[in-house]
Amino acid sequence: MLSSSFLVSDSTSLTTLSPHKSKLYSKSSPFLFNPTTIELPNSHFLKPCNISMAHNIISSQGSQLKCSAIGDDLDIHTEKPIFDPHSIKPNLIQKMSYDALVWSSLHGLLVGDRASEKSGKVPGVGLVHAPVSLLPMLFPESNWKQACEVAPIFNELVDRVSLDGKFLQESLSRTKKVDAFTSRLLDIHAKMLDMNKKEEIRLGLHRSDYMLDEQTNLLLQIELNTISSSFPGLSGLVSELHRSLLHQYKQNLELDPARIPENKAVDQFAEALSKAWSEYNNPSAVVMVVVQTEERNMYDQHWLFTLLKERYPFYIRKTLAEIDEQGELLPDGTLVVDGEAVAVVYFRAGYAPTDYPSESEWRARVLMEQSCAVKCPSIAYHLAGTKKIQQELAKPNVLERFLENKDDIAKVRKCFAGLWSLDDLTIVKDAIERPGYYVMKPQREGGGNNIYGDDVKLALQRMEKEGMEEDAAYILMQRIFPTVSPAILMREGISHADHVISELGVYATYLR
Amino acid sequence: MLSSSFLVSDSTSLTTLSPHKSKLYSKSSPFLFNPTTIELPNSHFLKPCNISMAHNIISSQGSQLKCSAIGDDLDIHTEKPIFDPHSIKPNLIQKMSYDALVWSSLHGLLVGDRASEKSGKVPGVGLVHAPVSLLPMLFPESNWKQACEVAPIFNELVDRVSLDGKFLQESLSRTKKVDAFTSRLLDIHAKMLDMNKKEEIRLGLHRSDYMLDEQTNLLLQIELNTISSSFPGLSGLVSELHRSLLHQYKQNLELDPARIPENKAVDQFAEALSKAWSEYNNPSAVVMVVVQTEERNMYDQHWLFTLLKERYPFYIRKTLAEIDEQGELLPDGTLVVDGEAVAVVYFRAGYAPTDYPSESEWRARVLMEQSCAVKCPSIAYHLAGTKKIQQELAKPNVLERFLENKDDIAKVRKCFAGLWSLDDLTIVKDAIERPGYYVMKPQREGGGNNIYGDDVKLALQRMEKEGMEEDAAYILMQRIFPTVSPAILMREGISHADHVISELGVYATYLR
Repeated sequence: MLSSSFLVSDSTSLTTLSPHKSKLYSKSSPFLFNPTTIELPNSHFLKPCNISMAHNIISSQGSQLKCSAIGDDLDIHTEKPIFDPHSIKPNLIQKMSYDALVWSSLHGLLVGDRASEKSGKVPGVGLVHAPVSLLPMLFPESNWKQACEVAPIFNELVDRVSLDGKFLQESLSRTKKVDAFTSRLLDIHAKMLDMNKKEEIRLGLHRSDYMLDEQTNLLLQIELNTISSSFPGLSGLVSELHRSLLHQYKQNLELDPARIPENKAVDQFAEALSKAWSEYNNPSAVVMVVVQTEERNMYDQHWLFTLLKERYPFYIRKTLAEIDEQGELLPDGTLVVDGEAVAVVYFRAGYAPTDYPSESEWRARVLMEQSCAVKCPSIAYHLAGTKKIQQELAKPNVLERFLENKDDIAKVRKCFAGLWSLDDLTIVKDAIERPGYYVMKPQREGGGNNIYGDDVKLALQRMEKEGMEEDAAYILMQRIFPTVSPAILMREGISHADHVISELGVYATYLR
Repeated sequence: MLSSSFLVSDSTSLTTLSPHKSKLYSKSSPFLFNPTTIELPNSHFLKPCNISMAHNIISSQGSQLKCSAIGDDLDIHTEKPIFDPHSIKPNLIQKMSYDALVWSSLHGLLVGDRASEKSGKVPGVGLVHAPVSLLPMLFPESNWKQACEVAPIFNELVDRVSLDGKFLQESLSRTKKVDAFTSRLLDIHAKMLDMNKKEEIRLGLHRSDYMLDEQTNLLLQIELNTISSSFPGLSGLVSELHRSLLHQYKQNLELDPARIPENKAVDQFAEALSKAWSEYNNPSAVVMVVVQTEERNMYDQHWLFTLLKERYPFYIRKTLAEIDEQGELLPDGTLVVDGEAVAVVYFRAGYAPTDYPSESEWRARVLMEQSCAVKCPSIAYHLAGTKKIQQELAKPNVLERFLENKDDIAKVRKCFAGLWSLDDLTIVKDAIERPGYYVMKPQREGGGNNIYGDDVKLALQRMEKEGMEEDAAYILMQRIFPTVSPAILMREGISHADHVISELGVYATYLR
């Protein structure tokens, strides 16, 4: 899931804006933008909730489209920011960049280099530092606290939605007709409903991504990842890198390293996985990680596996094809792969259509789903994280079906951007007239497939004309215009000044 | 100084032998061969002596020549070794190799990849795991203790020799005529003698390399590095890697991770450098590291610099050319480079003729030598580590000029292999008759230039015929035949079974 994004602290600068279009913003009550973990007491949780910031994944195509909209459509402030990394002298930037590159190399803040053919297949070869922002971004503390507070409520919401099979099937019924991938997932889900399959132990390793809308000052959810939430490992390292630089250069920078919140996402993920394993209660069973055949973001995963091994030494890595080949289901529901009983299945693959090149991979997914192994996620959790469900939950009176507490409902609703299905003709009309204020999002995961700007208009007009049901593959979302900030970005050993917008990603674990 | 050698624990398997020629050996009182630090009380030392094992550098050419000799000339045992890594099942080797590659990536056991053009210039790009032996090598504990015991005596010897300018000049007088590089070093040394230049604070960061002769069971010194002793950083990591693997696979391997001695070479090097800085007693002065323009072994250095920064935050890296350009000498002897007063000069370059492509680099060396900065090493320390001096010290009654204690003298002498100059006609005659029992070593540093086997005969015959003084550029050394051991070697992400011979390198620091 690593795309061409930059890691900004544990989170990521998503979009690189062309400098001539960019503007600087001021921000009250600044907070150093960085990963964190806070523990929230919640009687529904087996373990304290782990919350921290995340990366984001937006392709360069998305970036450029976003860029063209900013500056054209928006009335933006032009005050100086409180901390402007572009004002740092080149000599100091050079020193800090060098130190950041060394730190990343020595501390495993690495990814596989695209230029190296083997780098996604074998560890230890073709390594390059992860693309990062040299310094943390400022972020308002109040919004950060808000994102942390709502995380356990979103966890609970996902769990409740996952239990309502009818809601999932009905909400996605139109999508099913036009999106082959979602259709296959729904078929598996329907099969489990027919079998009356229950998930006794439910494990969620989620990451909820937000943007802070500049004009309304609202923290709005971009998406909630319920499968293969990436960067729990590297994001914590970026925080450490920033803390190290701020400490080392404290005489040059007026940034307090203590203002960077701690990010223990990777520890909490490891703890949740090992606790799920304990709950399964078979000491000889293993944790199985479902991986892609090639993975350049493997070191993010290996940080998690390393911590997992410290708690519980047996884990195996298998591709979907290997699981189909080596897996079997015992009469008692035990999943056995390559001779090992599996207690927990952790997906770091299987979220995108490309992960299922043949029927073999789908057979593997069904096999796992039928078993009594803990699935992270189950098919129902996976579906609960789709954009269509996000949009359905944003409809009036839908949240109330799943949550009782009015405060909780209000907190969740406050994070919802405008979300509409394409059968809402008033909204489609408005989107054709003012396409800059909307984003068209397909069901597909993995980023980079969103439609922005005039392309929204063209796509909607084409769908209207053709009268096809293709519209059900998309949702419309209010276009969010986050703060544009100056940053120093580092990629392939080179630092350059640029302007970025950032997402805040909050990791949360749930075991029930 | 990183060549194509494999790192075996902190030490290195030097030579890869072709399997058909190799033999396995048995070894009594085995000890896991790995880096270590032991502290030896010695009133002459400001700090406890740091001792640990090291890498070695032998080019593949040297390896092949060595290989051809072993098996041809030697009566070797063929008993099974106590631990044979070749007997480990392929499936387990594959798992352990994968884990070793991941561990190396996450923990900074890295080098720059030769395949990447930028990997020696910029940190963070073109990274690859360091070539290592998958498992530690067995090594007799008694010989390991012997090497540790003699380390402070060698330190003392280097210091005493460095103070005898006449001995250095006379011993190297013939070498001077034929070796341009040594000649330039001697000129600088002579200039310092003329100036009556004294080094008040003397810092040595040494590594003494040994091989264990299979037939005599003697631990014999290969060379004593007094300049740019490499791998203090990575060697400790290899120990940690091996400890981690032995711990993780304790049910599969009967090797006790506690038998791997600790290697704190990098900490001790950092401590010695920071203590030398303290002794210099100028709080605003810096430690300056003299580096090559390109260095693929930069991460070994960066581990040291990282620890140095924790103790004392200001260090600068400069090439010899930069020092020539930016350096000046104040009237009081203070060395100022790029506006910074320099307390300690630490050489990680300047040991090979290729480090001095123009007069600029030589000017820099002279400038530093004239200053009152602590030099690690001073020109006298540098010369004291030459092979010619090693050979001179091996002559009868020479050690007695520098050391008083008879036990110390006996311990040092016990480590000397047969060493002769090429004006010893009896030895030259024997070497022509039995070239397999000798090695011809040039003054030049950096490994890979030694002459083995029939080439010894040819070189000696040519020199006899031509009657040139070229012979003074070489010494003759007894050929040592160390134990050949089975090993699993890892390079570029691939593991393969092979047979190796190993050197034991012992790091030692000295501050006076």
